[in-house]
Amino acid sequence: MTPGEIIYIDIIGTGNVATHLFRAFKRVGNNVDVSLVNPHTFEGKRFKTDFTIIAVKDDAITEVANRLTDYDCGIIAHTSGSTSLQVFESQINHFGVFYPLQTFSKDVKLDYSEIPFFIEASDKPSELALLKLASLISDKTMLADSDQRRALHVAAVFACNFTNHLIGLSNEILGAYSLPLESLKPLITETVRKAFFSLNPYMCQTGPAVRGDETTMNAHLKLLDIFPEMKDVYNILSNSIKHKHVSN
Amino acid sequence: MTPGEIIYIDIIGTGNVATHLFRAFKRVGNNVDVSLVNPHTFEGKRFKTDFTIIAVKDDAITEVANRLTDYDCGIIAHTSGSTSLQVFESQINHFGVFYPLQTFSKDVKLDYSEIPFFIEASDKPSELALLKLASLISDKTMLADSDQRRALHVAAVFACNFTNHLIGLSNEILGAYSLPLESLKPLITETVRKAFFSLNPYMCQTGPAVRGDETTMNAHLKLLDIFPEMKDVYNILSNSIKHKHVSN
Repeated sequence: MTPGEIIYIDIIGTGNVATHLFRAFKRVGNNVDVSLVNPHTFEGKRFKTDFTIIAVKDDAITEVANRLTDYDCGIIAHTSGSTSLQVFESQINHFGVFYPLQTFSKDVKLDYSEIPFFIEASDKPSELALLKLASLISDKTMLADSDQRRALHVAAVFACNFTNHLIGLSNEILGAYSLPLESLKPLITETVRKAFFSLNPYMCQTGPAVRGDETTMNAHLKLLDIFPEMKDVYNILSNSIKHKHVSN
Repeated sequence: MTPGEIIYIDIIGTGNVATHLFRAFKRVGNNVDVSLVNPHTFEGKRFKTDFTIIAVKDDAITEVANRLTDYDCGIIAHTSGSTSLQVFESQINHFGVFYPLQTFSKDVKLDYSEIPFFIEASDKPSELALLKLASLISDKTMLADSDQRRALHVAAVFACNFTNHLIGLSNEILGAYSLPLESLKPLITETVRKAFFSLNPYMCQTGPAVRGDETTMNAHLKLLDIFPEMKDVYNILSNSIKHKHVSN
């Protein structure tokens, strides 16, 4: 990647990650030549590239990699948070992981410069090359081995998948009382802002559990009589909050 | 509240809610005359006002209200999500609830126009007066009876208190693997945006639980061996996600 040199990138996939990466690299400029490749027909695949990024479902990565042996692929990398680097070990020389930690929707424009990219590679030169590649579209590139990537994935399940579900539960409660979910938006936006602004989110915990306010918690559980399945969630999370604040 | 008339408001309290409401009303302009009142000494209390807002801890509301009998307070309202309207019933003629659904920090500036205010009152004229009062600082004013306010409070516990705790748990997991919490910020910001943008947050649920991906969930539970207390949280929330998506 010397100045003036063109970087050839093939991105294999039809989903949101492939589409977004393709768009992001398209915007870099004339020094990048990117092609979006159909994972079934390989339409769009070039015979010689610097990078081949496999952005398909986790369980299809190996199958796609196996069909790349006739191509001069450069460094081959997958984009999966929960697939190890070793998936490529048997058949490829230079390989890696090119993992953007974000949830992608087809029609939503994102600020790619803010998206963290986590890189792992088979060897130091490939590691450096993938870091440089990521830095073309993001200001937040870092190394992460497979254990760290798994930890990121688990942390994302807690902070994102579970949070989405909790907003879903809130929506049900509000709906039963003819209240719009929209009412909670400023509060949750400010809650998330505070949690990230603080050094430790536990420091800005609010609500009845951290205060040990059993009267309010019992009133809440009574209201949840019409949502019995939510009571377990309420109790486990309240206990977890109490536990952290007693032990901290 | 006819044009040209000055509205006199006393806000009793020293905490974040009192301070923020005081600041917000200060900014309205010359037609509002607002005073911040010390709840212990009553310093700042005027003898005749249009509104007296009690913004103190839930268990101090009654005691403050009892000491207001010598004043011409106008409409007396508390700002508590979990205190019923009836707290004032025995000693006051015109009373209500003036509940802003937001978490306030002393040094953080907020856009008050976006904060929803929920109003309840002893009588229709007081209800109308409190709605008008709230509309001086917010574009989102609505009525909510005590049951609705309790539902809002429970929904806020799920969507905000519990979310903050989940971000705290994520922070612990990331810390154990030398990763910064900051990595998750773009992902959680986009998750919350999507949840509110969708008609139903369940529709945009992602992650292993909704996919029924037991392999990934088992790998996550294995990583959580070093945080045994988080396993219960992981299991209960994953089961709750599975339950909602089977039954929907």
